Amino acid sequence: MYKVSFIGSGNVATHLATKLYEAGVHVSQILSVTPAHADALAQKVGAQGISNFDHLDTEYIDALIIAVSDDVLPEISNQLAPTSCIIAHTSGTAALDTFKSHQNHGVFYPLQTFSKNKEINIKATPFCIEGSSNAVASILKSLADVISNRVEYVDSETRKNIHIAAVFACNFSNHMLTIADELLDQSNLNLSILQPLVEETIQKAFSAKPKDVQTGPASRNDKSIMKDHLSRLSSDDLFQSIYKAISHSIIKTKNE
Amino acid sequence: MYKVSFIGSGNVATHLATKLYEAGVHVSQILSVTPAHADALAQKVGAQGISNFDHLDTEYIDALIIAVSDDVLPEISNQLAPTSCIIAHTSGTAALDTFKSHQNHGVFYPLQTFSKNKEINIKATPFCIEGSSNAVASILKSLADVISNRVEYVDSETRKNIHIAAVFACNFSNHMLTIADELLDQSNLNLSILQPLVEETIQKAFSAKPKDVQTGPASRNDKSIMKDHLSRLSSDDLFQSIYKAISHSIIKTKNE
Repeated sequence: MYKVSFIGSGNVATHLATKLYEAGVHVSQILSVTPAHADALAQKVGAQGISNFDHLDTEYIDALIIAVSDDVLPEISNQLAPTSCIIAHTSGTAALDTFKSHQNHGVFYPLQTFSKNKEINIKATPFCIEGSSNAVASILKSLADVISNRVEYVDSETRKNIHIAAVFACNFSNHMLTIADELLDQSNLNLSILQPLVEETIQKAFSAKPKDVQTGPASRNDKSIMKDHLSRLSSDDLFQSIYKAISHSIIKTKNE
Repeated sequence: MYKVSFIGSGNVATHLATKLYEAGVHVSQILSVTPAHADALAQKVGAQGISNFDHLDTEYIDALIIAVSDDVLPEISNQLAPTSCIIAHTSGTAALDTFKSHQNHGVFYPLQTFSKNKEINIKATPFCIEGSSNAVASILKSLADVISNRVEYVDSETRKNIHIAAVFACNFSNHMLTIADELLDQSNLNLSILQPLVEETIQKAFSAKPKDVQTGPASRNDKSIMKDHLSRLSSDDLFQSIYKAISHSIIKTKNE
C-alpha cells in the first residue's frame, strides 16, 4: 500500500489525509509550522506530527503532498531538501513547475471546497492529476483512485481553464446569493425563503444545459421588468452594473 | 373542503392543480384556450376541461386561480364576468390590483420553478399570499396551507423585492453556470466536473451567510490571478465585464 506524508494541516490536508488513511494508505508524517496543528491531524491518521523541515523523512514514502496556500509554495520548495520522492501540490492554480527544482513533482488537485467540520463525498470529488513524468502522473493517479471515482489527467493549461470556470460557477454564484441575501434583508426577510428555488435551479441546470433552462426577465427580454428592477437597485451602483452586465449577456446568449 | 378552478394548463397550473387535488381539494374546472390542454389536465384532477369563458362557473367555487404568463393577465381580467369568487393570480411580479375590477382578488404565488415532468417538494415550497381584504388573504392562506408548510403573507412591494433577489440568486446563478459550461467546452470538458463543487458551495451558502463563506481570487484580493483570468477572457467583452463587476463587488463586500 502507498505511503504518504503531508505538509499542511488545514482543511484540504485534513480531509485528504483522513480519507487516504481510512482507505488504508499509510500516512507517515504531518508537517505544520504550528506543532499543535501538526499533532492534532497526525493523531487522527496514525502519523507523526512535526514542525521542523529537518525532521521530514522522505526516504520511505511514495509522495509528499503539499496542501498549503499558493503564496507559500515557493518558500516550501526552497526549504525542502533534495529528494527523489514525488512532491505534489493540491492547488488549482499553481503551475506544475512550482516544484521543478525537485526531480519528481506533480499536481494532486481535488476540485472541491473543504470546510472544517463538514463531511465531503470524496468518491464523487474529481481529482486533477499532472506529473513531471508519466511515471509520476501514474502513481499520483493510482493514489487518487484509492479515494475517488473521478480521477483525470489534466495539464496545467486546462487546469487554469477549469479554475476560471469554477470562479464563475462557484465563487460568483455565491456572490449572487450574497446580493440576494442583502436585498431580502432590506425587506426583513431571510435568504432561506429562496432555498427551494435555488436548489431546484441548480439541479435543473445540471440535468440539462444551463443555457437551455435559463428563465427570468432577461431571458424573456422583458424590458419593463428589467427597467423596474434597475430603478429599485439605484442606491447601489455595483449591483446595478452587475444586473446590467449579466442581463445583457443572457440576452446575447439567447440570441445566439 | 375547498373548491377551486384554474385558468391555465402550463407547468404552474399543472403542479398546483395536481397537488391540491391529491391533498383533497375539489378541482372543478380547467380553462385553457387549447381544448386538448384543458382536457389533459382536467382528466388528471377529476375536473371539467373547458376552453370558453362562457362555460366558466364561478358560483360554487372558493377561488379561481389564474396561472398564465403575466402579459395575458389584463386580457383575462377583461374577459372574466363579474363574480364574488376570489380571483388569484400566481405571478411573482404582477401587482395585487391586476384584477381590481373584481371584488375579491389576491395573489397565490409559489416561490419555485416548475418543469413539466419533474416532481417538486411542494411542502417545502414557500407561498406568498396577498388579498384585497383580510378575509380573502385568509382563505388563500388556508388553501396554500393544505399543500405547503411555508405560507406567508407578503405585500406586493415585498413580493417585488423577493423577485429581484430571486433574479440574482437563481436566474443569474444559472447564467454563471452557462458561462462556466462555455469555458469548459473550449477545453473539451463537461460542466459535470464542477457539479460536486457547485452543490457543496450552495449547501455551504445556505448553512451560513453566503457573505461569510465567499472564497476565490476576488475574496483574497489576489490581483495576479484576477489579471491572468481577465487576459484569458479577452476574447469575450461581456464575460470580462461580468468578471470585473462581480469581483469588484466581492472585494467591496469583503471590506465592509
